[in-house]
Amino acid sequence: MRETWVVGAASNRFGKMKESGREAATRVAMEAIRQSGLSPKDIGYTFVANAFGISEHQGHVGPLINNGLGIPEVPSATLESACSSSSAALHEAYVHVAGGFIDVALVVGVEKLSHLDTLAATSYFAVAADYAFETKNGATFPGLYATLASAYRQEFHPKDEMFGAIAVKNHANAARNPHAHFQKEISMETYLSSPMIASPLRLYDCCPFSDGASALVIAAKEFVQRPVTEPLVFRASARSGAVTDMQDRPDLLGIPSTRLAADKAFRQAKMTPKDINFLEVHDCFTIAEALALEDLGFLPKGTAAKESYEGLTARDGKLPVNPSGGLKAKGHPVSATGASQVVEIFEQFNGLAKGREVPKAEVALAHNVGATGGSCSVHIFSRR
Amino acid sequence: MRETWVVGAASNRFGKMKESGREAATRVAMEAIRQSGLSPKDIGYTFVANAFGISEHQGHVGPLINNGLGIPEVPSATLESACSSSSAALHEAYVHVAGGFIDVALVVGVEKLSHLDTLAATSYFAVAADYAFETKNGATFPGLYATLASAYRQEFHPKDEMFGAIAVKNHANAARNPHAHFQKEISMETYLSSPMIASPLRLYDCCPFSDGASALVIAAKEFVQRPVTEPLVFRASARSGAVTDMQDRPDLLGIPSTRLAADKAFRQAKMTPKDINFLEVHDCFTIAEALALEDLGFLPKGTAAKESYEGLTARDGKLPVNPSGGLKAKGHPVSATGASQVVEIFEQFNGLAKGREVPKAEVALAHNVGATGGSCSVHIFSRR
Repeated sequence: MRETWVVGAASNRFGKMKESGREAATRVAMEAIRQSGLSPKDIGYTFVANAFGISEHQGHVGPLINNGLGIPEVPSATLESACSSSSAALHEAYVHVAGGFIDVALVVGVEKLSHLDTLAATSYFAVAADYAFETKNGATFPGLYATLASAYRQEFHPKDEMFGAIAVKNHANAARNPHAHFQKEISMETYLSSPMIASPLRLYDCCPFSDGASALVIAAKEFVQRPVTEPLVFRASARSGAVTDMQDRPDLLGIPSTRLAADKAFRQAKMTPKDINFLEVHDCFTIAEALALEDLGFLPKGTAAKESYEGLTARDGKLPVNPSGGLKAKGHPVSATGASQVVEIFEQFNGLAKGREVPKAEVALAHNVGATGGSCSVHIFSRR
Repeated sequence: MRETWVVGAASNRFGKMKESGREAATRVAMEAIRQSGLSPKDIGYTFVANAFGISEHQGHVGPLINNGLGIPEVPSATLESACSSSSAALHEAYVHVAGGFIDVALVVGVEKLSHLDTLAATSYFAVAADYAFETKNGATFPGLYATLASAYRQEFHPKDEMFGAIAVKNHANAARNPHAHFQKEISMETYLSSPMIASPLRLYDCCPFSDGASALVIAAKEFVQRPVTEPLVFRASARSGAVTDMQDRPDLLGIPSTRLAADKAFRQAKMTPKDINFLEVHDCFTIAEALALEDLGFLPKGTAAKESYEGLTARDGKLPVNPSGGLKAKGHPVSATGASQVVEIFEQFNGLAKGREVPKAEVALAHNVGATGGSCSVHIFSRR
């Protein structure tokens, strides 16, 4: 396999986009390419993630982006893997470049749902669950993750403040991230007094619906030679599936696909959690951040919420988690989320994360989950 | 690159499916795996094509299929590239296996729209066009392809019977294909008296809306060693994009992405059109079959309709085209179409195309177009 790099990364501000998905995608793609020092003409394949383009009456968005970039001849495809769509696209880009099929790939994740009312938007999100066994019976994602949170609380008896600490920390980080949907801090009091959404999940346990677009330029080391940015070197690109439905899982105290993907990734990278300086993990709900830290092997089962409360995962803690603000506060534009995690790692490596720098940015891990864990992607990056 | 094979291929009968997309997909996947002599446990990645699953309230269908196959841990992703979705998925499978990332990949294409009324189904199809410049202004695919047919007629003055010959031939082939939606022959009189849909396209110039599912098992030669079927050896797997919108193209006498993908594919295979024994091409409308034969380099511009009328492309002609019946008569379940073309080639190579055998089945080409040519895939397969 050829050494493969992320040489450009860009994001718009998550939240509510006035422009269409295709316009936002084309704009951030252009920005990521410009930053990489490469030319659109270098791109050999465009991998797009855009699960809900149909809500904008627009599928087949890859050719439209490539047309906008002036490279209509470049092949493209759209990847969907629920909330892990753009990390699935990133994996394809990695395979094509590392395998020597192309020299440069463009990854673009984009989602826009703010033109819909909340009920319609929720219906789009819900297609990622199992329609026959979950959605049709009334389950939506807040309910499904609330089930995981209930199981965790029943087993480990964390205090409310421990989950609150995850939300407070992620809002504090997002307040320093110009890409973030919610650029404001919240207090523990705000968290504790926020309304119950799906017990035990309160409003501030939940990520928002966001629009957004993120783009990455992936290239072979031997093609780039002299990078104009500090590239992220792929040390692992691993994906896994798992039992989709709650009722079929052996226990509800973790996400099995995270464990499997992490195991693959650490073996690929020949690393252990001790080697990782900071992480971007999939915190669609605060319980998801706690489960991620445990399933990825960073903390023993039942300890992550407590450790978060004690400051371990703060930006200046021993193990910074979600310095971007995470899905919780940076926002969760479904198909842009996985790529946006890598944008954060890129900005940390390149000194572009002004005001939210982590103490050490040499090796980082990105963790992106599809639905309640039917899919999971884990990527590990280091400096050259 | 490792030598890579198609070792199993299955399809249901196209038309109207009573079962859901996920059920049909799981069933045909199981059939393709059984036929390959491999086990579900051998699969390293599942690539699904299912552009319109949202109409069934179901996205993220890969994990559901893998769960059904008893391999929940296997990663998956859904590929969308309009009508070329499952050939895009096939390309990913090829890259993963040929590049040595995995040994065996599963490709499943599935689409179900028959639960919708015609207007709703047409709206789903239409998302593959450019919403801002085409769909919003009233263009649907019959109209867009009618524009191509008008340009062709204006330039080359073919008789109506020449396009009729393409429809009559494809229906004759489909009548002998148990997977086909329309298993009946039509006469030239039936063609000529059929109602105008979008001038100059008559009813029998157009493919139907079909439900359907097709699956392929892709494996490395060195992994399989002793295949239980006659494998298709990948000689080329090529994709291209092109200018999406009619108004931006230099001319309307062909599909530029077909020319580019064909050029790549023939270079990869070190072959010319003379080496190909038969083809499956993307005939969503009869004009598309004529353009494909010319753009792929088999016939000079303006001659394909005439040559079809004179019998060149019949099942027992010198260059059999669409022995399956093509999209026109086998049917066009959007995301299953590209994979189903390879199912036909597999059945021809394995003596399973009873009653519709082509004279020589040693080297074959599959051509799959997304929308009006924003994407195109060309695959070339030979015997061992």
